[in-house]
Amino acid sequence: MTVARLLVAQGGGPTAVINQSLVGVVLQARHFSSVQQVLGARHGVRGIVADDMLDLTHESAERLEAVAATPAAALGSTRDKPDAAYCQAIFATLKRRAVTHFFYIGGNDSADTVRIVSEEAARQGYPLRCMHIPKTIDNDLMGNDHTPGYPSAARFVAQAFAGASLDNAALPGVYVAVVMGRHAGFLTAAAALSRTHADDGPHLIYLPERTFDTARFLADVKAVHERLGRCVVAVSEGIHDASGQAMAAQLVPNAERDAHGNLQLSGTGALADALCEQIKSQLKIKRVRGDTFGYLQRSFLGCVSEVDQLEAREAAAFAVRHALGGSGGDGSVAIRRVARAGGVHEGAYEAGYALQALQAVAAKTRVMDDAFINGAGNDVTAAFCDYLRPLLGSSMPRAARLASPLLPKT
Amino acid sequence: MTVARLLVAQGGGPTAVINQSLVGVVLQARHFSSVQQVLGARHGVRGIVADDMLDLTHESAERLEAVAATPAAALGSTRDKPDAAYCQAIFATLKRRAVTHFFYIGGNDSADTVRIVSEEAARQGYPLRCMHIPKTIDNDLMGNDHTPGYPSAARFVAQAFAGASLDNAALPGVYVAVVMGRHAGFLTAAAALSRTHADDGPHLIYLPERTFDTARFLADVKAVHERLGRCVVAVSEGIHDASGQAMAAQLVPNAERDAHGNLQLSGTGALADALCEQIKSQLKIKRVRGDTFGYLQRSFLGCVSEVDQLEAREAAAFAVRHALGGSGGDGSVAIRRVARAGGVHEGAYEAGYALQALQAVAAKTRVMDDAFINGAGNDVTAAFCDYLRPLLGSSMPRAARLASPLLPKT
Repeated sequence: MTVARLLVAQGGGPTAVINQSLVGVVLQARHFSSVQQVLGARHGVRGIVADDMLDLTHESAERLEAVAATPAAALGSTRDKPDAAYCQAIFATLKRRAVTHFFYIGGNDSADTVRIVSEEAARQGYPLRCMHIPKTIDNDLMGNDHTPGYPSAARFVAQAFAGASLDNAALPGVYVAVVMGRHAGFLTAAAALSRTHADDGPHLIYLPERTFDTARFLADVKAVHERLGRCVVAVSEGIHDASGQAMAAQLVPNAERDAHGNLQLSGTGALADALCEQIKSQLKIKRVRGDTFGYLQRSFLGCVSEVDQLEAREAAAFAVRHALGGSGGDGSVAIRRVARAGGVHEGAYEAGYALQALQAVAAKTRVMDDAFINGAGNDVTAAFCDYLRPLLGSSMPRAARLASPLLPKT
Repeated sequence: MTVARLLVAQGGGPTAVINQSLVGVVLQARHFSSVQQVLGARHGVRGIVADDMLDLTHESAERLEAVAATPAAALGSTRDKPDAAYCQAIFATLKRRAVTHFFYIGGNDSADTVRIVSEEAARQGYPLRCMHIPKTIDNDLMGNDHTPGYPSAARFVAQAFAGASLDNAALPGVYVAVVMGRHAGFLTAAAALSRTHADDGPHLIYLPERTFDTARFLADVKAVHERLGRCVVAVSEGIHDASGQAMAAQLVPNAERDAHGNLQLSGTGALADALCEQIKSQLKIKRVRGDTFGYLQRSFLGCVSEVDQLEAREAAAFAVRHALGGSGGDGSVAIRRVARAGGVHEGAYEAGYALQALQAVAAKTRVMDDAFINGAGNDVTAAFCDYLRPLLGSSMPRAARLASPLLPKT
């Protein structure tokens, strides 16, 4: 029997369930007697290049389960986006460590890294199975119904907006909250799942899939404020004008850019503040408050969808079974929704797992379907709510209102 | 038997458990056959003056329980701080509605309103029992061990920092989060309860009880960053310099002020952004991220301490029992900690309830004891952690780490 040496690493932004996938790899590998070693590279591809490795082979199942329930990336992560030379350095370590199976948990950039490493191994005739395990709160991977990490982050956003909307009803004014999502609006759209009553916020939702027009935005806010005496708005950090320029770049002077020229959108409250300033100065509304959900939406300890936990674990286990037991080649695990007779509804939701080509996912971005966005471009549709609801998990808290009669004035 | 007509209202910032107190009043009143009516004024004292009243007398217990579990203020709240004339208008409505018992759930400003109304009733010889029921996430009411609303907000802050610290360990850099608290640092201090391991964040905590010195702050951040390669900082929105001027006023141009001349501290990310800018420009650290917990920390649906829920309910029930069954006068309910042989520790925690004079609470602010703050003024003490821990409730999620051995480099 061939000896198997597995290497697993985590890349990109942490999520509430990325450690479920890590633990899924380690525990599933224990079902294969060929597995001699399971390595964990620290801080993703950076740790592979630096040969910075933990030996996960004998980690106790008890500790692994505790780590699985912990958010962020237990091995550490990285923002490095390897080019061809970087991938050759990765490949050199894998070869030196006699790694036979490489599992990289991450988003579309991580899938691209796996693709390059896979091609390099093939070119050199080195027998290496390369698997990409999906992860991103942005939910923007092609070929997936949804991605591990998104349901838990969506749950956080829904619970946050439910509370913020109640707060806004208690102390009326305009409330604007900025949610993560540079190109895809899925996470911002999750704000809609916070609604229980017809006049609950968010009353307006702005997504990067549509062009943002400040005048139109102000007219929308004004109309809601006149109707209800208050207004709750969900805004994606990635909103942009017709030319594609980010509103954060237009409204915020001296906004920071990274090495790739990408504007810093998270870790600053500038966009929310700038939108609030527009509302105050243009609409003359007095109480205007802005929040930016920031890192809380992806890392908050104790807000997780158990559907997400299970699927993140299962996607990784599927990757291991395919890589060690299957006959196919390299690829990226995809979550699909299993259709049921009678249509997809809450009771009938079920996930299935499939393997797709790395090229189908690598460096590509999926955005929201038109069917998920309303005609006016300032809200989502019922179809989107039906899509997301079963992913949020059970025991979603619900807001209740008094139904007591209003007394005639004395 | 005298007929009793109760009026209850909610004032100030919403909390996770203010509706527990509302429901505590309504349900406890049902034990007294003298109670003919329970009125709920909408939006606090503003609704009393406007005679905007719900009749809570026959609200179903089932709905009341659902409302109790919902954050924010179900009756609506207000920021109005009544002066003598305003209190006379309140009193006029109470008289017209033949109210015999007035319960106001709120902070020190609300206690002051109750005090003035109580004095006005005495002056006019009108038999009115006036009770203040404590509520504030700031935990700044005199004579209380702690206040309803604080434990749940503290739990949110602790869970948020636990996640943010894990995120910061996965993708190292400096992370600064601004927490509510203008004069009292209790809520910011709760960040310390997120720690599980010795090097977990927050590594630095800045409170309004101590003078903030930017140079000292930067030196602190630099030292932690050099030691750990990362740094997580908790900052109270109320930090100020030696002259008492808020850092938000110094670092943020054009900061907004309210009608009372108070600087707007919440609902903007400006202070966090300004502190991050200082770190970037002065320390030349590249990855610096700032979050402002904003309204999430007081309204997030689904993060609550069951100790807090119980105490908020109990404090209100105590007020009703005192007002309808007791022989004493008007007052403010206080939560005390029952001391146990062997000292106060987690297993022995128990709350007791007492009545204190309205004057003892009204318009006064309690801040953190010196024993709760470390000598350097950049962290809390073990005594503070022991104080807060039993209030957070059960099933606080815990972060786990891998314990796998690091492999020697090949």
